[in-house]
Amino acid sequence: MVTQMEQTLDKFIKKNLNPEDLKQFNRIHYGREDHCELKFKESTFKTAGESNIDVAGYYFTANSEQVRSPRNVIVGLIQHSIVLPTDKTVSEQKDAIFHKINKIIDIAASEGVQILCLQESWYMPFFLCTREVEKWKEFAESATEGPVFKFLSPIAKKYKMVIISPILENENGTWWNTAVIIDEKGQYMGKHRKNHLPSVGSFSETSYYSPGNLGHAVFDTKYAKIAVNICYGRHQALNWLMFGLNGAEIVFNPAATISEFGESFWGIEARNAAIANAYFTCSINRVGTEDFFVIKNEKEERITRSYYGSSYITAPNGQRTPSLSRVRDGLLISKFDLNLCRQVKDQWGFNMTSRLDMYAMELILKTQT
Amino acid sequence: MVTQMEQTLDKFIKKNLNPEDLKQFNRIHYGREDHCELKFKESTFKTAGESNIDVAGYYFTANSEQVRSPRNVIVGLIQHSIVLPTDKTVSEQKDAIFHKINKIIDIAASEGVQILCLQESWYMPFFLCTREVEKWKEFAESATEGPVFKFLSPIAKKYKMVIISPILENENGTWWNTAVIIDEKGQYMGKHRKNHLPSVGSFSETSYYSPGNLGHAVFDTKYAKIAVNICYGRHQALNWLMFGLNGAEIVFNPAATISEFGESFWGIEARNAAIANAYFTCSINRVGTEDFFVIKNEKEERITRSYYGSSYITAPNGQRTPSLSRVRDGLLISKFDLNLCRQVKDQWGFNMTSRLDMYAMELILKTQT
Repeated sequence: MVTQMEQTLDKFIKKNLNPEDLKQFNRIHYGREDHCELKFKESTFKTAGESNIDVAGYYFTANSEQVRSPRNVIVGLIQHSIVLPTDKTVSEQKDAIFHKINKIIDIAASEGVQILCLQESWYMPFFLCTREVEKWKEFAESATEGPVFKFLSPIAKKYKMVIISPILENENGTWWNTAVIIDEKGQYMGKHRKNHLPSVGSFSETSYYSPGNLGHAVFDTKYAKIAVNICYGRHQALNWLMFGLNGAEIVFNPAATISEFGESFWGIEARNAAIANAYFTCSINRVGTEDFFVIKNEKEERITRSYYGSSYITAPNGQRTPSLSRVRDGLLISKFDLNLCRQVKDQWGFNMTSRLDMYAMELILKTQT
Repeated sequence: MVTQMEQTLDKFIKKNLNPEDLKQFNRIHYGREDHCELKFKESTFKTAGESNIDVAGYYFTANSEQVRSPRNVIVGLIQHSIVLPTDKTVSEQKDAIFHKINKIIDIAASEGVQILCLQESWYMPFFLCTREVEKWKEFAESATEGPVFKFLSPIAKKYKMVIISPILENENGTWWNTAVIIDEKGQYMGKHRKNHLPSVGSFSETSYYSPGNLGHAVFDTKYAKIAVNICYGRHQALNWLMFGLNGAEIVFNPAATISEFGESFWGIEARNAAIANAYFTCSINRVGTEDFFVIKNEKEERITRSYYGSSYITAPNGQRTPSLSRVRDGLLISKFDLNLCRQVKDQWGFNMTSRLDMYAMELILKTQT
């Protein structure tokens, strides 16, 4: 019931408050009275409507500066469900998702998206809840030579789009949960590997892949300095912090999280990170229900997991967009001036007052006792 | 206008949603469908009503355990406005606030509050916006021998209450922004000094007092292990983290923050800290409007600052209470089982997956370059 509920918190509000109350609610909850919607093309609504895709776009403004020109960028986030049942072949399942994503990227491109991020393990069902490997192992692939890279690379080139592609990586027999950065020429630019592996009650991903060994790289793309904090890593303040210290202007958080875990703080963590570190955060969560059939005690057992979508974006000043749908595929677009990052730092002083040297010492002492 | 608006975000919702929508809103926004209100005595509502005090109480539940008994505690937070105009004498202003607070503590005691926290610099107008010192300097006092300690000590003893008293401390000519912990026998137990000094646009407190030199102490009181993160310190993830690593079960955040700065993320930061560190956070913000008359360019100029109250409490599982009023004095009471802290850590695994050794090294490298 709850997981099928279409309404986001935002929708509840919009439909129930009178205009004056809505303004005040928005001021307190979103950080601004108006959502600042982007004007989309007719064709965008038409194509999205035909495919039942929730499209939404919002802009954030920055002040003009004397020395620096505005550095506007347009980002896009895609949240989507799987297409075929999970007992189809790996290739069938993957191709069906490729086909769907291709269409959504076309829409994104027509609205000028320059940096696009897909959800965690976007081309597969999130089978890690099954604890099985055999059936799924061909979903893990090379970051630079696998079918996913080969699918996205020409699209990135065609649209001059930087694409962040979260995959399961198999590198010489070791698995990683990896975000691959493809640059606007369609070339491999680098990758980030998930630093923190979930271990929530009986759910654990530790048997599938290794904790990230690539630190907190920031990728200086043509359009912005970006970083990726994969899913469960959003619970770790230090993970967010290091991306900020390394110069990130936008941090993407591609995720696959079910309603039973953390829907009430989905709107809290990435937003807090944006405020604390003065960068934009882009939160993407999977949607849809996935059924798996596993053999347990010689009997077939069904595992069902539902994801709540609700992708959203926060600016460094704490202003945020409404969320995409809880249940439908969606494309969220935002246009903003990256200069806002430094403007917020200069105004609020969180960086200047951070006393990092004190904390570095305290942490060293703490981890050695 | 905005600052005088009584309604919190919570009130907007309650008055506008139908019962079924309200449940779903609460589930997503507060982390639970029901607020779990505490049942207060008749006398509490009567006394509070007479003095126009917003009283509210909520409980949080934990599972029962085999080895440990429940460790229930009742905490109270007081938010209040000043009483007299800021041009009265220091003693007159202070005594008037003492008188008001005495009454509110009586109510808290009658509801069994065991740990009570007052707002930042609670016995004075928040004159730090004036940049003047001379007129105000007698508000700064000794942590253990000043009028504030002498006022609160017998009350703490009488009610067997631990009281956290945020003061401006003058120790041998050096000022600090300090939270004094008075134990349930009325004795001085220790103090914390604000680690991060605000520097927001033209507002700065750096000329008044020094950055805290007492680290991140946790006080093992009779009722709970507590710590204090004063006001602007809530913007620093590492500040919250260290209290957690040092074993805090409750972290209080006494503040004095105006609507123009951060009302939209007041509900984000302390709540995020509770989730990230698996402890309870108690957020207290001043209310009311304060007028100051300062001399600038040989002319008298008026400075007006309005505080938005909205005190609230978050549990380690991310569930939170509604906020107190934006404009009225208030007393927020909560009863909870401290065992919830470890239960959440064991369930969510944020501590176990934190890789602190990696971050300690990264921070050392970062601060030495």
